[in-house]
Amino acid sequence: MDFFAVVDTQRALRRFRPDPVPDAALDRILAAATRAPSARGAEPWYFVVVRDAALRAAIGADYRRAWTAAKAAAADADRDVRDRPHYARMMRAADALAAELGTVPVLIVCCLDHAQLGPIAAPDGGLRSPVAAYASIFPAVQNLCLAARALGLGTTLTTLHTAFAPTLAARLGIPPSVEVVALVPVGYPRDRFGPTRRKPVEEVAFLDRWGAPWPKLDRGGPRA
Amino acid sequence: MDFFAVVDTQRALRRFRPDPVPDAALDRILAAATRAPSARGAEPWYFVVVRDAALRAAIGADYRRAWTAAKAAAADADRDVRDRPHYARMMRAADALAAELGTVPVLIVCCLDHAQLGPIAAPDGGLRSPVAAYASIFPAVQNLCLAARALGLGTTLTTLHTAFAPTLAARLGIPPSVEVVALVPVGYPRDRFGPTRRKPVEEVAFLDRWGAPWPKLDRGGPRA
Repeated sequence: MDFFAVVDTQRALRRFRPDPVPDAALDRILAAATRAPSARGAEPWYFVVVRDAALRAAIGADYRRAWTAAKAAAADADRDVRDRPHYARMMRAADALAAELGTVPVLIVCCLDHAQLGPIAAPDGGLRSPVAAYASIFPAVQNLCLAARALGLGTTLTTLHTAFAPTLAARLGIPPSVEVVALVPVGYPRDRFGPTRRKPVEEVAFLDRWGAPWPKLDRGGPRA
Repeated sequence: MDFFAVVDTQRALRRFRPDPVPDAALDRILAAATRAPSARGAEPWYFVVVRDAALRAAIGADYRRAWTAAKAAAADADRDVRDRPHYARMMRAADALAAELGTVPVLIVCCLDHAQLGPIAAPDGGLRSPVAAYASIFPAVQNLCLAARALGLGTTLTTLHTAFAPTLAARLGIPPSVEVVALVPVGYPRDRFGPTRRKPVEEVAFLDRWGAPWPKLDRGGPRA
């Protein structure tokens, strides 16, 4: 697939078909993740690919409980975005994901090893520079999600596992120096890929100084 | 360009030709950045595209000073990676970048607005969940770097600006709620794009549980 066709149509997909995901596709997705940059070229990442049905069911139950709690708080916490066009649809899809996460064919648990961050982490594993630490893992997670889309597989980047991180670490045997940064469900989607709707570039880009307009160009193409 | 050809050959490029970068290319790169996912669909990002020569020179001088200080510490701090094959070459290129950053044709200053993070940030702007916050900006930065590569433009994701963040914010007029998360130089590269050398997938991926081997597949293709 063409690069920009992938990027322009990668959107969060939260409902999945039960069809199995081939090993070769997962391997290609993982290889793409590892092509990302990382501070010092350290490649401080690990990926646990969860296919085991009992493990997925258990993680799914953890996730559903965390979602129920988060959702109760969201009505107020999301007051700045809840009137935007995407919000109601996104929340319905997030509900569906929470109900079904345990049966999505594959969960990829994306991990950052603080012990491979050198001066970015302290000897006790605390992060001296969170920004430099997460700059060494979320590019890999994004490569993973884009590569999935290129192969016709849906994903969504979730971080709700932070509400049950110790439980998740225990279920998967993740060592103390390693932080799970994202839980990415992977499967053939029930919904369609984009194009995605976003703020236009001139609302989020400036030229030279904050507030100075970026020229509005005639872009053509599928921009909403 | 084919998606996987882009991902497999995107590497940090730190030496640039002086040729100007067209507005249309930058606009396409910025549009690609905005296609990334973000928590709550909030799109909490801004991009300041610095072309002004005096500003670039000033930021370049800030960067060079920070690099000189960081490099003095790196010999010890990087003892875990300094014997790897890539390290000496990476440090030479990083030296070159620090010497020349002020003359790279474009610097893209990537920003995360804490005021658009909803419950992820506290009312004072502090991050309640750094992982969820940075999960809403580094996928966009990675899209930006990949899109640049698709257009033949080199980039490298740097976070050294954290050593002079207040100075940088003052130079660009960045408001208090907004954090610069990356400074990305952009230009036509003097060095070649990848393929990149990475750990093989089976060293960083597990099946179902930490430590359980991911099958080594016959991958073909340009994996080192």
